[in-house]
Amino acid sequence: VNPDLASERQTASFSVEKLTAWLDGGAEQTRLRRAVVGAIERDPVFSRENQYFQSQNERYEAAVRKAVHLQKKMHEMGWSQEGPESKYIYRAVAGDIAFLLHRIFMRSISVLGSDKQIAKWIPLASQYQLIGSYAQTELGHGTYLQGLETTAVFDSTTQEFILNTPKISAMKWWPGDMGRSATHTVVFAQLYVHGKCYGIHPFIVQIRSLQDHSLCPGIIAGDIGPKMNFEHIDNGYLMLQNVRVPRENMLNKFCEVQPDGTYIRRGSQKINYFTMTSVRISLISTEAVTPLMKACTIAIRYSAVRRQSKLKPGEQEAKILDYQTQQEKLLPQLAAAYAFHFIDNYLQELFDRGYREIQRKNFDTLPELHALSSGFKATVTQYCTSGVEICLRACGGHGYSLLSGLPSLYTKIIASCIYEGENTILLLQTARFLVKSFMAASTGQSVPPSVAYLAAAKPRKCPARNKLDFLSPDIYTEAYQHMAARLISSTAAKLQDLIQSGVKRHDAWNQCTVQLAQAAKAHCHYLTVKNFAETVEKIESKAGIQKIMKHLCDLFALHGIFSNAGVFLHDGYVSGAQMDMVTASYLDLLAIIRRDAVPLVDAFDFTDKSLNSALGCYDGQVYQRLYEWARKSPTNKQISPAYEKYLKPLLHNTLSKL
Amino acid sequence: VNPDLASERQTASFSVEKLTAWLDGGAEQTRLRRAVVGAIERDPVFSRENQYFQSQNERYEAAVRKAVHLQKKMHEMGWSQEGPESKYIYRAVAGDIAFLLHRIFMRSISVLGSDKQIAKWIPLASQYQLIGSYAQTELGHGTYLQGLETTAVFDSTTQEFILNTPKISAMKWWPGDMGRSATHTVVFAQLYVHGKCYGIHPFIVQIRSLQDHSLCPGIIAGDIGPKMNFEHIDNGYLMLQNVRVPRENMLNKFCEVQPDGTYIRRGSQKINYFTMTSVRISLISTEAVTPLMKACTIAIRYSAVRRQSKLKPGEQEAKILDYQTQQEKLLPQLAAAYAFHFIDNYLQELFDRGYREIQRKNFDTLPELHALSSGFKATVTQYCTSGVEICLRACGGHGYSLLSGLPSLYTKIIASCIYEGENTILLLQTARFLVKSFMAASTGQSVPPSVAYLAAAKPRKCPARNKLDFLSPDIYTEAYQHMAARLISSTAAKLQDLIQSGVKRHDAWNQCTVQLAQAAKAHCHYLTVKNFAETVEKIESKAGIQKIMKHLCDLFALHGIFSNAGVFLHDGYVSGAQMDMVTASYLDLLAIIRRDAVPLVDAFDFTDKSLNSALGCYDGQVYQRLYEWARKSPTNKQISPAYEKYLKPLLHNTLSKL
Repeated sequence: VNPDLASERQTASFSVEKLTAWLDGGAEQTRLRRAVVGAIERDPVFSRENQYFQSQNERYEAAVRKAVHLQKKMHEMGWSQEGPESKYIYRAVAGDIAFLLHRIFMRSISVLGSDKQIAKWIPLASQYQLIGSYAQTELGHGTYLQGLETTAVFDSTTQEFILNTPKISAMKWWPGDMGRSATHTVVFAQLYVHGKCYGIHPFIVQIRSLQDHSLCPGIIAGDIGPKMNFEHIDNGYLMLQNVRVPRENMLNKFCEVQPDGTYIRRGSQKINYFTMTSVRISLISTEAVTPLMKACTIAIRYSAVRRQSKLKPGEQEAKILDYQTQQEKLLPQLAAAYAFHFIDNYLQELFDRGYREIQRKNFDTLPELHALSSGFKATVTQYCTSGVEICLRACGGHGYSLLSGLPSLYTKIIASCIYEGENTILLLQTARFLVKSFMAASTGQSVPPSVAYLAAAKPRKCPARNKLDFLSPDIYTEAYQHMAARLISSTAAKLQDLIQSGVKRHDAWNQCTVQLAQAAKAHCHYLTVKNFAETVEKIESKAGIQKIMKHLCDLFALHGIFSNAGVFLHDGYVSGAQMDMVTASYLDLLAIIRRDAVPLVDAFDFTDKSLNSALGCYDGQVYQRLYEWARKSPTNKQISPAYEKYLKPLLHNTLSKL
Repeated sequence: VNPDLASERQTASFSVEKLTAWLDGGAEQTRLRRAVVGAIERDPVFSRENQYFQSQNERYEAAVRKAVHLQKKMHEMGWSQEGPESKYIYRAVAGDIAFLLHRIFMRSISVLGSDKQIAKWIPLASQYQLIGSYAQTELGHGTYLQGLETTAVFDSTTQEFILNTPKISAMKWWPGDMGRSATHTVVFAQLYVHGKCYGIHPFIVQIRSLQDHSLCPGIIAGDIGPKMNFEHIDNGYLMLQNVRVPRENMLNKFCEVQPDGTYIRRGSQKINYFTMTSVRISLISTEAVTPLMKACTIAIRYSAVRRQSKLKPGEQEAKILDYQTQQEKLLPQLAAAYAFHFIDNYLQELFDRGYREIQRKNFDTLPELHALSSGFKATVTQYCTSGVEICLRACGGHGYSLLSGLPSLYTKIIASCIYEGENTILLLQTARFLVKSFMAASTGQSVPPSVAYLAAAKPRKCPARNKLDFLSPDIYTEAYQHMAARLISSTAAKLQDLIQSGVKRHDAWNQCTVQLAQAAKAHCHYLTVKNFAETVEKIESKAGIQKIMKHLCDLFALHGIFSNAGVFLHDGYVSGAQMDMVTASYLDLLAIIRRDAVPLVDAFDFTDKSLNSALGCYDGQVYQRLYEWARKSPTNKQISPAYEKYLKPLLHNTLSKL
């Protein structure tokens, strides 16, 4: 181990192993996680070595190989999809695997299909006698599902639906696993019966032959080409030309077309929201927080090893982690990674409680859950994406090399701001809930717990008198609460004013959306700070963990005030003099947390293989590793044909003869 | 042309052609630019079609082919390196060309070499009898040049320098054109004569045979592998093992080792700063502003074509550009692109004036020029990088496809935050100048023009009384000036206080760096707003150009206040009520500028080929083009071997037999 990294570990103020276990939810979980990750990483099929050198075609092939091998592996190891190991498998393969849409295919049949449909399709899918995908998004439509243009017309003479892509913008576009792998997909289309449109419905459509994988009649499908990342996934396009599927292929738990064309709707569709909610919550941890934790691990370890310029004249060059500006880049990201890990726990609990209620046919928690999952999906993915980018830039030139692992973390996480609901649209959904709740609260109606604070909103002043007061969770949590309530109430007031002055409701809404999105972010920021403070409060003081977590919580909170000073100063709740105290305490904290920065990322417990970074390895031998890895690049495996073709004639001055 | 885009152009409030000519510096320049771009784009060798499908090896080969062909082309067309066409050539090839370091090689010899050295090497280089590179950065050292570890020891018995890479961190790393192409390079190394170290000096070293391109004895060199972008450049590594070069190969305009080992230093080294200054200023336009202009063109045209969801019930789906949140993402970036185009003009003028002075041996303008070039390099590259990212995200899923052109703009521009001086370090250099100037100004000494405002800093209040007052350039320029002066003076005061309280000078500096960097940014932001306002003032009102530029200037200024509210509110210069006026005026401007958004990007006059974007073409046929381009992807050119190897056995349930 590089001595510059070893020395950082000797002075940890807490037990790294205990913090790891606490983050995992207990030492038993840690043991299980390590066992799963170890088993996967020891298997050469799952190796990610050379990944940064691979083409899109090679990445796809490797992802399919891994997905197929994983079935075998799980059988071998006695792991099941529902078992406790499953959440660690995804972490271990680092997302680099095919057939993730196959699961969505199965889930949509389980949720939207009748018992008969489930009995027919789920066994086929579980045994991989078909490969499924999920064809919702079109070239011309993403988030606005009602606008989808694919049609499914019922033909009562043959008892079939005829599916069509009426124009180019109606082509299915982006579905994963569809470009090259899938044999079947769930197509969302506008249902027409006897000329009447009944809106969007799901249909199971076979797209490729089970015998030779050739495209079925009427199907045009392929790969949508290169993307910023996800080279391993065959995101596809699909055009349907008079494709006929039997009546039984419309998923009909909630609605059915009877043989004579009678359309029947049954049951509640609210459960659909619940599916989206569950997906949004589950991606927060795997697709946003984990990548940020990895980026922090890489950047902080590298910053303890990289020495550059002199901090004190006459001494050796300083570790870049000792510069205040470097601390100010990285340590708030580290604090955010912890903050969002805890908010994920909070959301999971809320979700589990909501799920139990729904099983009892009580849908009351749905609006709050929908608002929180939308708002947190948007704010956490946005924050973590910025955080990963900051980590990348903080590593200077070497961060820009793919071998650092940071570019691929960044190009992947940025997609999380777009998929499963574009972030701005999600924030506005949260805002709609907040405005509604504010209106209810101000007329004395009861509101869900997460927005109960809106009832108490009134002008106040922050009581802090010196910089140490700002290390009190009560002080800063209240500042966040006040600020969020003010943004929500003032935007709600603007909306009301516009409507009362004669502006049409939809125009008024549009004219408030910039501020509504800001209010929704403020609400989530407040809840994150509050939840972090409450989490710290609950830790039984063991091995210094509570102390360091308290520092991180303070840092997260004060960084937020420092970086968004305007919204706290605006109505004078925080004064300019108090803002100087915030700044002072914030900068003090950087120097304190810096001492534990390496142990704090060690506690995330990523293996070198899972980081796949020449800069971030546990041993800190960054330069050796960069050199070793670079030599393996295909650009060093061959003399480029460019020499004989262009360089030699140029240098030998024979170009004119060409 | 898509009617949704055509309609945007019919209502332009100004003449696009006249704005283009004004931006180019006259209609004659526009004509010349179009002629050069046209000649390059009509030549199939320069085609960037299929670029998004190419591997690193293919990109490199294409870049070399283009570089070699460009020599021929320039000869054919009668263009010279010094001619008026040259600045348009780079725009036309969109940077996608090899041998850019060859020019730096030549420039460093011209600047650092003696007349004799120039006479020997420059003709060889101009005729491409060698290919040059520039080997400064090492694995372990970037910005801090004094820390470079490569050594050059003078051997008086043979009259040679012996160059060595004493350890792995001393390996040259990153130099462009060096991994595979270069035959020669300028190596920066610590000079030792008779055991004494004289610091960093430049040496011309041959690294590859001119006959067969094999590596010279003692040379280990290769490509550093994949990066986030710049696949076309062979950034390289270089290890030197007792490589001997003759005494004449040390560039010796400013210093010389005589045959007996006597070391002589002569002339001013200040000119070296001037070279860095010139590079930093020149990259602002080509590497930061142009990419932002392209990203705005793509995202704004797409936003006028993309329809999603309904703004008014019962109407057709709305153009996404009609949503306030979309306007708030894109239009401030558009305003920034204009603002930075104008600040680039300002810097160029300042630079030209400085250059004339330097030719008269007057170096007085150097400190200001160095501070401004550092500060603006940092702030403009940072701002433009964020701007390109915002444009990418604003295009939703399709922005994430490489075919949109946005990912490659982003992955390239982000490097500009790192190279030619890491941005944080540059900001701190500017801050050092600002603190010094502030101290001088406050003791009544004269200071350079760009910081003269620091002398007048005092507590005041913003006089605006309603939202229209904030459309007055005097009002907002003064707000920026006040804010910048406050940040500089309060940070200088903190620094003084720390030193007076006994903190050592270097520690005190480190403890202020977060705020110093903020102050430097504020200074550049102020100058950008001031320069934009002055530029608008000087336009003779023609064809509505002044009016729309005034709107953009207002938007740029108010967006900055809205987004950085804290620093304006902090001391009460702007009150909370005034901030509400800023917000109101800012949001009003979005709706006004939205009407001219497409004409404003049309005026940048990028050809479809130079945008290389399926979303950004002039005709707005985005869906057709996405589909056509995707079909050409190599992922659609072959049946993946994954089918026979993995999918077929899986589907046919023969896996267990494998």
